[in-house]
Amino acid sequence: MADPQSSPPPEGTGPSKNELKRQEKAKKAAEKAALKAAKDEEAAAQKAATEVDFAAQFYGPSPLHQSQTRTGEKRVQISSLSDLDGESVIFRARVQTSRAQGNKMVFLNLRQRTDSVQALVIVTPEKISKQMVKWSAGIADESIVLVHGVVKKTSTPINSTSVQDVEVHVSQLFLISGIDGRLPFSLEDASRPDSEETAAEADAEGRQFSRVLLETRLNNRVVDLRTPVNQAVFKLQAAIGDLFREFLSGRGFTEIHSPKLQGAATESGASVFKVSYFKGSAFLAQSPQLAKQMAIAADFERVYEIGPVFRAEDSNTHRHMTEFMGLDLEMTIEEHYHEVMELLDDLFLTMFRGLRGKFSQEIATVGKQFPAEEFTWREKEQGGTLKLTFREAIDLLVEDGVSREVLDDINTENEKRLGRIVKAKYQTDYFIIDKFPLALRPFYTMPDPEDPTLSNSYDFFMRGEEILSGAQRIHDPAFLMEKMRSKGVDPDSMKPYVDAFRMGCAPHGGGGIGLERVLMLFLKLNNIRRASLFPRDPKRLDP
Amino acid sequence: MADPQSSPPPEGTGPSKNELKRQEKAKKAAEKAALKAAKDEEAAAQKAATEVDFAAQFYGPSPLHQSQTRTGEKRVQISSLSDLDGESVIFRARVQTSRAQGNKMVFLNLRQRTDSVQALVIVTPEKISKQMVKWSAGIADESIVLVHGVVKKTSTPINSTSVQDVEVHVSQLFLISGIDGRLPFSLEDASRPDSEETAAEADAEGRQFSRVLLETRLNNRVVDLRTPVNQAVFKLQAAIGDLFREFLSGRGFTEIHSPKLQGAATESGASVFKVSYFKGSAFLAQSPQLAKQMAIAADFERVYEIGPVFRAEDSNTHRHMTEFMGLDLEMTIEEHYHEVMELLDDLFLTMFRGLRGKFSQEIATVGKQFPAEEFTWREKEQGGTLKLTFREAIDLLVEDGVSREVLDDINTENEKRLGRIVKAKYQTDYFIIDKFPLALRPFYTMPDPEDPTLSNSYDFFMRGEEILSGAQRIHDPAFLMEKMRSKGVDPDSMKPYVDAFRMGCAPHGGGGIGLERVLMLFLKLNNIRRASLFPRDPKRLDP
Repeated sequence: MADPQSSPPPEGTGPSKNELKRQEKAKKAAEKAALKAAKDEEAAAQKAATEVDFAAQFYGPSPLHQSQTRTGEKRVQISSLSDLDGESVIFRARVQTSRAQGNKMVFLNLRQRTDSVQALVIVTPEKISKQMVKWSAGIADESIVLVHGVVKKTSTPINSTSVQDVEVHVSQLFLISGIDGRLPFSLEDASRPDSEETAAEADAEGRQFSRVLLETRLNNRVVDLRTPVNQAVFKLQAAIGDLFREFLSGRGFTEIHSPKLQGAATESGASVFKVSYFKGSAFLAQSPQLAKQMAIAADFERVYEIGPVFRAEDSNTHRHMTEFMGLDLEMTIEEHYHEVMELLDDLFLTMFRGLRGKFSQEIATVGKQFPAEEFTWREKEQGGTLKLTFREAIDLLVEDGVSREVLDDINTENEKRLGRIVKAKYQTDYFIIDKFPLALRPFYTMPDPEDPTLSNSYDFFMRGEEILSGAQRIHDPAFLMEKMRSKGVDPDSMKPYVDAFRMGCAPHGGGGIGLERVLMLFLKLNNIRRASLFPRDPKRLDP
Repeated sequence: MADPQSSPPPEGTGPSKNELKRQEKAKKAAEKAALKAAKDEEAAAQKAATEVDFAAQFYGPSPLHQSQTRTGEKRVQISSLSDLDGESVIFRARVQTSRAQGNKMVFLNLRQRTDSVQALVIVTPEKISKQMVKWSAGIADESIVLVHGVVKKTSTPINSTSVQDVEVHVSQLFLISGIDGRLPFSLEDASRPDSEETAAEADAEGRQFSRVLLETRLNNRVVDLRTPVNQAVFKLQAAIGDLFREFLSGRGFTEIHSPKLQGAATESGASVFKVSYFKGSAFLAQSPQLAKQMAIAADFERVYEIGPVFRAEDSNTHRHMTEFMGLDLEMTIEEHYHEVMELLDDLFLTMFRGLRGKFSQEIATVGKQFPAEEFTWREKEQGGTLKLTFREAIDLLVEDGVSREVLDDINTENEKRLGRIVKAKYQTDYFIIDKFPLALRPFYTMPDPEDPTLSNSYDFFMRGEEILSGAQRIHDPAFLMEKMRSKGVDPDSMKPYVDAFRMGCAPHGGGGIGLERVLMLFLKLNNIRRASLFPRDPKRLDP
């Protein structure tokens, strides 16, 4: 049976203006007709209600699922239905939409994650009653149902579902979990393209497309996360973690788990959260920096950690959160800290290739809502990753018109500008800046061997935003203490850390990657909160 | 050249009493001789010091490693040396011990993680001076050195190192990182078997074996972690994580990262850490319970998380920490919560098999210090995992003599007793207890469909200690609120959580595993702190 919805789904490349107008008219006409039909049917329905319902046991709300029985009956996935033409199937699904056609037929759009299929409930003598059709039509969007039905090939492809060549003719339909109250927004609205052009275009046409604000989404994150785009975003988030681990496991790294509760406010006292700890206080780790270096002093040679890091910074920007996932690594070096920098570069190229290679469908899904130029990097045959020194980066900015006087550091604005300059000149969204001024780096950073104002440290950038910071670290305790004092840090406040180097430690370096930043910038999500399942910022601790 | 140490290393199955006595005598004699030789040599050495040292550029402390140069010279691993007979090699290593023989030769035991090799510095005309030998003999244990040398086959196997068929004849030796102060304990002492029998035996012999207390180890964790046993323990810890992820990835689970900072003190208010959060307060998550259930309501279907969990319990026991790693999972269920319980059982069997299969060497290493009966479980052909109901477990305890009156719950002592009963009766260290009384479980636990005093919940046990707790959860918001109120929890205090179920949620269940507990019990480490890199308890926040 053909698709009952005259309009294509809002996901997709989007219809033209004229088509949208036509669809809008058609929709209104259909609604008017439906209203009239509904009135006509009311009397009939009232009559029907008094009749005995022969289908009563085939539909309705299920009793609360408490694992009453276990028949072992097979449940199928919507994604497999195309292969099951003619077969009787049972499956659990969410009702994306339901739409009655007259009082004898209901079209359901049923969803499992990003897969969807059309189902029909049609009045059939001795099988499906009018009452059952009516009840089916009344199921609220986003309810969860258990469906029994038969799979049938369709004559024409269905545009509004991911499974397009078959539909399900329902024989039994039970409500597993309903909706209590109103949905905060429809998934249709939540899936509209997030571009200003679209908004402007819609306004010009005088149409009212509801668009869902980020704040509203985050307040109702559980519903928001159900959109195809968010399902894809978090599949990609998991993929980045997998690629990170896979790369490092293959290179002799051991995964570690370091404590987030710390005895002292370390690294930088200003931005650390304080915890009530029995009769005293503890502090939340701002990174696994100290622990991972201590693991090197403990002979682990190469370690990585994936874990939360906490920053008590009152920064309410598109790229700051108070809690985010750190992908951290640390390794001994033989001759030169570029051994680490190059391994990190390899790691990123492997992640980029892995995402592009295995998740092109998810990237395309996200691109429909967040249009972006495809993320670019330079492979070996294109000269490899661009590596600038800090001085070279400054020169590029000065050439572009920025005053050298303000360039002691590169602020966020100039970072973005540099990203644009580099993109235009070198055709890459990904590059490295090496040799940062020592004054800009933490006390544990190893100074350059020749110029004491510089350091053996680097940042990595994606689309003009920093996503990794790393360096060679100081492994000599006396030199470390000297540098701590020069930065106003009391070595006694970090005694266990300093002591680790007293017992002999190999030269080492590493880096820390912000998982959500990589995800945000690879996909150009424009706000880091979209890359976090339940984001935390100075104003948000819920949900 | 033969092994200079007459005694075998302290690691290993351990020598007999008589042999130990003989070794002790031999050692004392050798020390006496060495003392005399040292005196004799002093004058000679003083003379030598005034001579020109032709080897001056071949040894000594390196300048601080600041990545001065990058020659690309190949560095090798100690583990590969057996294949490099006759070749010149360069490698970085830790000096486990150094031992002079007269003033012309020094034996070094060099280590990389768990690999070790013997190296010799021998006076050689125009190549190795007396001064170089003397300096080499004075290198402190646990220093890190850069070694240049030639690999040579030995005539007899060397017992004191892991590489036994070759040794390294040193041509150049540089100190990369020395020891500042005294080692808190020797790795030899830290590697002695941790059994009361050994201690008693040592006392009976009147010998003084230094044994290192856990407290001392943890205070100096960086040195403690260098022992072969600890290197193995944390390789196994990483392996458990890998096996967990691999199993779940293959079954359609998505990794998630949920926030540890929470807006409300949830689950159970008593044992939650409070955090100063800008002008207000936050709380540290006691588990990802709420977030992972919300991910199910958000259609993720199957999720897992590996992350820290925080418990503000003032429990100073062998098995409690204030921060530990949770291996959590949650999944939708079709017909019955046993779908989850059986998947978790499969997961554990897969982990046990994976550890036994791929890490037998590491398990054996740990067993030398922590002797234990090998961990046992029942494979399918032995009837599969033992699954008892709570009632059956109680009956077993009553049969064994425990008074039924005290068995409303099973306390720690009776848990252990049950473990012993089960081991004797069913020959397994691993079993499941299902159908716990509802009163013993959290408010979100689904009651049994027939007996409202019971619940659809289970615990998993290893060697008589709980390592997993899980259940079917309540997915109906009205029923959930009713249960919250009955347990004294205000539903409004957890509004975002309750709201998630208002928007439709599939029936689901899951469980949470304590990583360190699994590691501790599989290896029988006897104290959970040994299974944590840097453990945290009510009295320990450092290192």
